[in-house]
Order: sequence, then C-alpha cells, then structure tokens
Amino acid sequence: MSGPTQKVLKPGDTIGILGGGQLGRMLALAAARLGLRCHVFSPDPDSPAFDVVQNATCAEYADVEALEMFAADVDVITYEFENVPASAALVLAARKPVLPDYKILETTQDRLGEKDFVTKLGIGTAGYADVTSAQTLNAAIAKLGLPAVLKTRRFGYDGKGQAMLREGDDVEAAWQRLETRAAILEAFVPFEREVSVITARGADGQVVCYDVTDNEHRDHILKVSRAPAAVSEAIAEEARRIATRIADALGYVGVLGVEMFVVPDGNGARVLVNEIAPRVHNSGHWTLDGASVSQFEQHIRAIAGWPLAQPLRHGTVTMTNLIGHDVDDYAQWLTVPGATVHLYGKRTALPGRKMGHVTVVEPAAKP
Amino acid sequence: MSGPTQKVLKPGDTIGILGGGQLGRMLALAAARLGLRCHVFSPDPDSPAFDVVQNATCAEYADVEALEMFAADVDVITYEFENVPASAALVLAARKPVLPDYKILETTQDRLGEKDFVTKLGIGTAGYADVTSAQTLNAAIAKLGLPAVLKTRRFGYDGKGQAMLREGDDVEAAWQRLETRAAILEAFVPFEREVSVITARGADGQVVCYDVTDNEHRDHILKVSRAPAAVSEAIAEEARRIATRIADALGYVGVLGVEMFVVPDGNGARVLVNEIAPRVHNSGHWTLDGASVSQFEQHIRAIAGWPLAQPLRHGTVTMTNLIGHDVDDYAQWLTVPGATVHLYGKRTALPGRKMGHVTVVEPAAKP
Repeated sequence: MSGPTQKVLKPGDTIGILGGGQLGRMLALAAARLGLRCHVFSPDPDSPAFDVVQNATCAEYADVEALEMFAADVDVITYEFENVPASAALVLAARKPVLPDYKILETTQDRLGEKDFVTKLGIGTAGYADVTSAQTLNAAIAKLGLPAVLKTRRFGYDGKGQAMLREGDDVEAAWQRLETRAAILEAFVPFEREVSVITARGADGQVVCYDVTDNEHRDHILKVSRAPAAVSEAIAEEARRIATRIADALGYVGVLGVEMFVVPDGNGARVLVNEIAPRVHNSGHWTLDGASVSQFEQHIRAIAGWPLAQPLRHGTVTMTNLIGHDVDDYAQWLTVPGATVHLYGKRTALPGRKMGHVTVVEPAAKP
Repeated sequence: MSGPTQKVLKPGDTIGILGGGQLGRMLALAAARLGLRCHVFSPDPDSPAFDVVQNATCAEYADVEALEMFAADVDVITYEFENVPASAALVLAARKPVLPDYKILETTQDRLGEKDFVTKLGIGTAGYADVTSAQTLNAAIAKLGLPAVLKTRRFGYDGKGQAMLREGDDVEAAWQRLETRAAILEAFVPFEREVSVITARGADGQVVCYDVTDNEHRDHILKVSRAPAAVSEAIAEEARRIATRIADALGYVGVLGVEMFVVPDGNGARVLVNEIAPRVHNSGHWTLDGASVSQFEQHIRAIAGWPLAQPLRHGTVTMTNLIGHDVDDYAQWLTVPGATVHLYGKRTALPGRKMGHVTVVEPAAKP
C-alpha cells in the first residue's frame, strides 16, 4: 500500500509526533526553533512533550478516531520510539506522510529481522540464532556456545526482555521466564568498547554522520557518552561507513542511531552492529550543546524536506544521563562551569527512569 | 506595597510570562530545557509564544479575573516587554513574585525618569530636557541645539513616537504631530558606534555580563549584532561597569540590556547610555548559539532563584535579524555552513516585523 508522499514543509506547518517522552519533547523544541508547530500524540497524560506544544492528543494508539483527527491536523508525522504499533502506523500513513517510512519498523522491531538485514548488507553482527522453543534454544547454545544472551525478538529496551545464559544455568527455566515463543540467542561479544554513530539522511539521499561516540552503560542503561570516541581514524571511518550503508539501504529519511561493538581482532579491531534505533538516540544528546546543529534539528530538517546541516563539534563533549534520583543533583550541576543541564519535566524519579542529562563541553585543545 | 518575596523554584514549577512575542517564546523554550513549565499571558491570539507552551491565557491586560487566574496557576511571573501596564503588574504582584520587580518599570517606561536615574548614578547620557509644550520645546532647543531628537516619554520602541528636528524645521508642527504633552528632547550624539551589554543579575546579587556587542540599526530597527564588539578593552570594561552599576542600582533580578553610544572624545572615546531595556534583548540573541549559556537561560535561572552560569563564547558571532520579507530567504539561510536559523512562527511578514534571526559562529582564530 502506498500513502501520501513527502512534501516540503513551510514555516508554520505542523509536525505530528507519536510518543510524548523526552525524545518527542526535544524534537518539538527543535521544530519550534525552526518556526514549525508540533502536535504530540501520546497515551500518557503525564507526557513530558505535552508541556512544550499547544496541540496534544492524549489517546491510545488503538484509538482510530483519535489517530484520524491527529492526522487531519498535521502535515507530516514522525515518531520518537520504534515500537509504534503497525496498526496505528497504517491508519496514519494512509492519510499523511509518515517519516521515517513505518515499513522500516517491521525490520527494526524484530531483533531477528534486523540482524538478517544487517548480515545481508555484508556487515558483521554478534553470532545469532532463531529461538522458538526450549529445544531450538538448546540447538542455538550448541551452535553459539556460552555465555550468550537470550532476548525476546520484539519490544525489548534498556535490558528488558533479556537474560544472560552462562555455563551451568538452567536453560529450560530461563526459556520459561522469557514468556515468549519468538526469541533470539546472541553470542557473547568480548567487545573492547561500545560506540554509536548518529546518522541523518535527507529526503534527497544526502547522509550526514556525527562523530563516533563512546558509550558506557550501567545496568543496561546508557550512562555516559563521549564524543569523539577514542578509536582510530580507521575504526571511526568504518563505523560511519556502516551507519551510512544502513541508512541508504533502508531508504531512510530522518535520524537513526546505530549501536556498535568494537571487538579486538588480531592486532587491530573490527566493528559489529549491535542494534539499529530508527529515531533520535540518547547517545546523540551531546549534539544539543556540543555541535552547531543537533540530532533533533537534523531529524526535523530531514522530515520537513529541508537540507541537512554539516555539524561542527565545539570541543570534546561528555554527556551524562541523570537516571532516577541522579536528578536530585540538578542544583549542583547548575554550578559546574561549561555544563548545560537538561531536565525532562518528569514528575517522579523512578529507578532507571531517564530524568534529564548534562552536557559538558571542553574547548578543543590547541593543535 | 509589598508582595510575595522570591522563592527558589523546583523543576516542574511554572513560570508565568506576560507577553507572547518571540522573546516570550524563547524564554519558554529555555525554561523547558531546565524542566520548568511556562504559562503565557497575551492579548494576541496569534502569539508566537503560545505555540510552545501547554498553558496559555489569551486576555487583555485589563482583565483582572484573567490575571488572577493566571497568577493562581504560576509560581513566579516575568515579562518579555517593558510596557506592562502598571495596573496589571499591581494585581499580579499582590499574588505572586513578579521579577524583575515591576517598580523598575516605572523608571524605564519613562525616558525622562530613566535619564534622570542614569545621570544620578554619575553615568553619561545624551544631553536632554523635559518637554511639555511648544514653548518648553523651544527652550530645550535653545539649550541643546539642533539637530536633536524629540521623543514621547512613554511607549516608544523601534523608532516609533520620535522625530528628528533639524535647523529650519517647523518646531510647532513637529510638536503637534507627536500628540503628547509628555516628551523629552535629546541632543544629537555624534557616536562612532552603538553597542550594548546584556547583563544578568541573580537573586543573590551576582552579576554576569556578556561580551559587549556591536549593533547596526536600519530604519531604527536592529539589523545586525556582532560579538565581541570592535572596541578597546578599556571601552569594553567601561561598558560592562556601567551595565553592572545600573543592574545593582535597580536591585535587578533577571536579564537586562543596556544600549550605549561610543562617542569620540579627544584621542579616546567615552560611553554614554542610550536606553535600558528591562528584559532579554534582541542584541543578545547571539548568545543562543554563540555562548555556552543564553541570555534566555540566564533570565530563567535568575527569576527561578538559581545560580547564574558563566558564559563561554564559541567564537566570533554575527546575528542578523530577519525583518519583514527577509524571512522569505530562510531556505537559503538553512544551507549556510555554521548558520543557525531561528524562526518565530509569526504568520504574516509585515514590514518592520521581526520574523526570525540567524546566527553565524566563526570559530575563534588561533592566537
């Protein structure tokens, strides 16, 4: 089925955003800077993105009437999260351009489909195998060895829906706990670092990559990103090449984040793709203060049919997530020289909840 | 009369903004970044600031009920323009803290009172005289000479409510055209440049000045600002000293802009104050992209009772206003390397209307 095709927005036009979290909020703020309005659709009445737009719809993604009214009010639709229900995307795409193309979600919502897609492009991933039962799980373990990570194929994020399997673990019990029949086993990757590349692709096919970013996770949640990553220029080039290849192959319009592992390989290293996030990405938040154009503005430019900008980095940039009660330290962060504090307006600091982030830019050292 | 005193805001608290233009809009965007909500009050249904907040009141400043409901919904109140009616300020200040203190407006809304205030601080201004009739106008001309500028004492901006008087002009006719009995005659100042200093003063009395900015006007409207200004360090220091003195003397909390003339004086130059703007100021828009903290965030920090930040400038910064149909060039500006485009979301590009601005940052030259 083919819906409306992309148009070039004018200032004053309205972007519809599915999802009302901090990513939707920062997209809306970037759009406002460019004279574009936003209408946020989210089922959560406490959505942080509602605070920064005049037009908001609080409804379930299954509410077809609400989706239709939303589509009627906007000129183009985008999303802040990859788990947009296919049924909602279908309703919307029949009425207004949805960018990035929602069919891309079919690939990226499914860990198996995503890995197959990447592999077919000739890009490396961790070894993986389809798992549909305790029996196929045992076969996968026989093939990939242990330790390995068992993950649901769909709807996992920040470490949810996954289990590490080690020698001697009760495989049958782990399988039962996952409560699914669609899973994937991924070989353990002895990586030396986790990096990501934030990539924007315009409606005209132009691709702009940000500097490769070093990422540190804590409890499966991103804690710190640093740009540029401490990798060789060869590795950085390879990482950008991979991200560009993926964006091109998807015919992508907007910003996507590609998470990668850098794995020791003899005297050198190689780059494996871990995950594709078809959206603005936490590891790109440093671009708000550390670059002349942010990932959020690039995404808006792309879906508006406007030209992408060439980002200039302001120095060495460190982004720290404020997770849960980390946010209680905001007043101290306000006093740190060169620090920019971003708070998302969430009411309750639950454990593991991303409440804000802080960017610190150190001017580039003299050559 | 004494109203509620300042409190320290928490993330999630609400700032009330009087006025819904681009300054209110950019204040609201800065507040959002810090996790604060905004409620905008403006009589204009097409207010650009309405687009970026969830809570908006469209009502006249004389609508006491609307003002009371607005005050009840917010934790602190600020304003984006200096012509807030005293009656509205009184209603609000009895209910919630209004910052900067609205009593400051009594000084800055009146060109004569402002010049008297500055003069009493020992700071130079253009020569001036009170004018209340054609007779006192003639006496003022005899004292100050011609050319000189006749201005209404109140409610003038962007060259409105003023007339240049030259030798041979019909003084009586000029007086009639001004349609007021409260005016001021200002001696013509043979300035070599117009500069401004954007100054933030915190609730604790801390003062932070941005770099002195060079300003170019066209048809009495600011067209281009450049930071840092091409003045000697002595002149820059004098300009910052003057702005600091004014902020301290006013017991100011928030951001104010002080417009100044640099006037040749023998082998050197001296600095005269032209005007005080008790608000964020167009000549400080470069700080959004050219500094580590913007004038808008500083204002929000000050009125929130939070610490001010020390701004670091990213390089040499040029800000160009998009006035009237200048805004039609936005698509070209989007392609200029290093340019950041700000559009205010105004529907109609009337002549003289500020529709947006563009900042270009050139990285600092190596020493």
